[in-house]
Amino acid sequence: MSDSHKLYDELVSKYKEYSVLSTVQGVLHWDMQVIMPPEGAGRRAEQLAILAGLSHEKLTAGRIGELIDKLNNSPNGLSEAHRANIREIARDYQLATKLPKEFVEEFSRVKTLAHEIWAEARTKADFGHFAPHLEKLVALSKQAANYYGYKDHPYDALIDQFEPGGTAKMFTKLFDEVKAANIPLLNKILHSSVKANRSILNRDYPADLQKKFGEQVMTQVGFNTKAGRLDVSVHPFCSGGKGDIRITTRYNEQAPQQALFGVIHETGHALYEQEVSGDYLFTPLGEALSMGMHESQSRMWENFIGRGKPFWKHFYAKWQAIFPQQTRGVSMEDFLLAINHVERSFVRVEADEMTYDLHIILRFEIERDLIGGQVSVNDLPTVWNKKMQDYLGITPPNNGKEGVLQDVHWSEAYFGYFPSYSLGNMIAGQLWNTMRNEIAGIDAKIENGQFSEILNWLREKVHLHGRRFGRDELLTKATGSALDTQHYTGYLSHKFGELYQL
Amino acid sequence: MSDSHKLYDELVSKYKEYSVLSTVQGVLHWDMQVIMPPEGAGRRAEQLAILAGLSHEKLTAGRIGELIDKLNNSPNGLSEAHRANIREIARDYQLATKLPKEFVEEFSRVKTLAHEIWAEARTKADFGHFAPHLEKLVALSKQAANYYGYKDHPYDALIDQFEPGGTAKMFTKLFDEVKAANIPLLNKILHSSVKANRSILNRDYPADLQKKFGEQVMTQVGFNTKAGRLDVSVHPFCSGGKGDIRITTRYNEQAPQQALFGVIHETGHALYEQEVSGDYLFTPLGEALSMGMHESQSRMWENFIGRGKPFWKHFYAKWQAIFPQQTRGVSMEDFLLAINHVERSFVRVEADEMTYDLHIILRFEIERDLIGGQVSVNDLPTVWNKKMQDYLGITPPNNGKEGVLQDVHWSEAYFGYFPSYSLGNMIAGQLWNTMRNEIAGIDAKIENGQFSEILNWLREKVHLHGRRFGRDELLTKATGSALDTQHYTGYLSHKFGELYQL
Repeated sequence: MSDSHKLYDELVSKYKEYSVLSTVQGVLHWDMQVIMPPEGAGRRAEQLAILAGLSHEKLTAGRIGELIDKLNNSPNGLSEAHRANIREIARDYQLATKLPKEFVEEFSRVKTLAHEIWAEARTKADFGHFAPHLEKLVALSKQAANYYGYKDHPYDALIDQFEPGGTAKMFTKLFDEVKAANIPLLNKILHSSVKANRSILNRDYPADLQKKFGEQVMTQVGFNTKAGRLDVSVHPFCSGGKGDIRITTRYNEQAPQQALFGVIHETGHALYEQEVSGDYLFTPLGEALSMGMHESQSRMWENFIGRGKPFWKHFYAKWQAIFPQQTRGVSMEDFLLAINHVERSFVRVEADEMTYDLHIILRFEIERDLIGGQVSVNDLPTVWNKKMQDYLGITPPNNGKEGVLQDVHWSEAYFGYFPSYSLGNMIAGQLWNTMRNEIAGIDAKIENGQFSEILNWLREKVHLHGRRFGRDELLTKATGSALDTQHYTGYLSHKFGELYQL
Repeated sequence: MSDSHKLYDELVSKYKEYSVLSTVQGVLHWDMQVIMPPEGAGRRAEQLAILAGLSHEKLTAGRIGELIDKLNNSPNGLSEAHRANIREIARDYQLATKLPKEFVEEFSRVKTLAHEIWAEARTKADFGHFAPHLEKLVALSKQAANYYGYKDHPYDALIDQFEPGGTAKMFTKLFDEVKAANIPLLNKILHSSVKANRSILNRDYPADLQKKFGEQVMTQVGFNTKAGRLDVSVHPFCSGGKGDIRITTRYNEQAPQQALFGVIHETGHALYEQEVSGDYLFTPLGEALSMGMHESQSRMWENFIGRGKPFWKHFYAKWQAIFPQQTRGVSMEDFLLAINHVERSFVRVEADEMTYDLHIILRFEIERDLIGGQVSVNDLPTVWNKKMQDYLGITPPNNGKEGVLQDVHWSEAYFGYFPSYSLGNMIAGQLWNTMRNEIAGIDAKIENGQFSEILNWLREKVHLHGRRFGRDELLTKATGSALDTQHYTGYLSHKFGELYQL
């Protein structure tokens, strides 16, 4: 074995220790949100703080820096994949060495407690209860941005954690393009004479039957139930990795579409993790490219496939079999229109496909100005409500589940994450157009409940590569061009034009 | 702050890192047995191996040895509690430094995989499937005994992990005393004209109702449900600690006594962990004294209290309310006799109070001879079945759930643990006699469903002290004398004499 291979193996085995410790934190976070009794919070905070410190210690070990330097100086005989893994380990190392261990531990402790307080505050719609904790999270996030460094705006440093190279400026431009196309389209839809009958979804759909149907869909699109689970939590999420991937949802018995599309969304995330390369587990090439790429998968399955007509040509009879009374007199077309109903609404995770990006743009702007210092924590309820009025034409009735406290992200200091959701839509639009050209008779296959070609296509074009390529590099290989929002806006225009007879 | 206090604080904070990492392993073990999908085993093995290595590294850090030496050389100004904590940290440090880190990691990896194989082999009653893994576990355990060192017998080194100072010789003597008293008593019971009507328990008791009753009992005896949970696993256990204590059980719908007394047993363990001193969390004074002491608590609640007449004078009406049809025409006395029915049986965890110790003695002797090298792994099914015939007069119909594969312990290399169960009975007998003298009207209180004085007594005499005293020291403080088996054998003789009219 050559010297460079020995050094590479040592580097990867050191990175693996860090990576495995991160997955342990994932298990504890899952447990905290799904299983843990309330008085376990203090104990869990101790556990997470020590693990955060240890995994940081592992990633920032001086030996990792030495190995990266040596490998960069004499990369002879290393394959392209090896070089990509070294490049990405170096990225993680550089990001992590910028934060002192004590800072990481303190941040973890504050986040764990803040999360518990947020859950209470959200239930009570009491922003003041959460505000002092959010102050701390914002201050610590600004401090993190300073540690990371940035050229233009401190928020750039936070975005970069989730979306390498992403900036406030870049997203402002992308969002402008999306707004320019979508706002006129939204107005047309809201004035269309076609009206969905949403009341057919407000009937009583028992949670256990919703779960049964959700599991049917998960399994049929390709989720391996021997290597994963579906559970319940306040805020739905996907965690774990190849071999043990766990998704969660929450059931509203008078609005089954929430859990249904939530499950399909999280299944999209899960399929990405499930189909990564087994050869590169616990290394960057076995990890998702970015949060935006992750969201492209979840939103592809949720909306492009799961809210499409071919999908329901296959699944509607199964849905009727599970809910015979609730679907009496409801045609597949009625149902399709109901699950694609467009409206002005308060809650992001329940928002329809057309208005979803406006919810994201609102959060993006607030985060940018909060981190930039133009908005203070105490102003948040006011700023939130004003922007809701400006963009969606409605004012939330409270600061809790319908208002500023609705999302889990800020309680975990995930500033910079939100833009990834809309980026995911844009990427999904672009992948979708190419995939439709390359898989012959794709709609007929979906109508027959055959999803394996779609999953294979996504696996080969996206999942298997992990972090091997950058976003635009991967998109160019997969679709022939870098990110271009026209694919997404064109998809929306076509789909809703048809549904609403515009 | 004096120098010795500074050193003490540093020692305790270093020990705490180790201790918290151990609790993380506890969460992952719980998850593995309750929640984890089957294909998660490889991933979990990686996680547990790294955590085992890290917690070992933390406990064996040279600085801990230095701090212990310094504190032992100048203990001025330290309280008795501080000195006890230093003594017990030193014990853990010395035990751990004897095992090389690589050995600990390898052992953890082998155990995790062996556990999965054991679960399959047990279901298929296929000893050969598990045997090669058990070979490895025995070899590694012998190697561990050599690392630890011992005077008399390698098994002593393994027992000492769970029961400090316990030896094969000591247990042989204790078990001889128990056998001499119990075998004649067992024969009298089996020949008594009083016969329980066990068929009243073979009716259909739905699992969800069993769970409901179990939770009632847990709560009423003092388990804080905001700081713990009850779940299902193949082999029942208790894990976690103050703030988040989790017990498990399994439901047999035609034998509700199994889960019922399983839950009360695990609740006994849980109450010990729940009532330790909050001032000493994550240090030895916040941990249970020994496995034998732990079992004394579980078996006290399960048998001495939970299978007693006063307990059912309180709970029988509640049981009837949950199971009105199943208990039709069944008096409290019929029920009491049925749950105290004595018989020759195959499965330890389902064995009655009278024959239980014989199951333990069998395992104790097999482990002793397996570790001593007088018995080989391949002989185990034969040796097991012969001893079952000799001690209990019956031969198991298979090597699975009714035979040699029934217990989880060997799959986790818990050699040396089994004797603790019977030691627990002996300790419980001694505590019970003193407690009955010190709590006026104890039976009447139990009949009224009042358990707080019992829990207070156990907290003050046992739980709060953690590892501050040795077993005999604690027993002498609590009961006036060191361990004496006559309390336990006398208790059995009195209880079963009354039930079976001997």
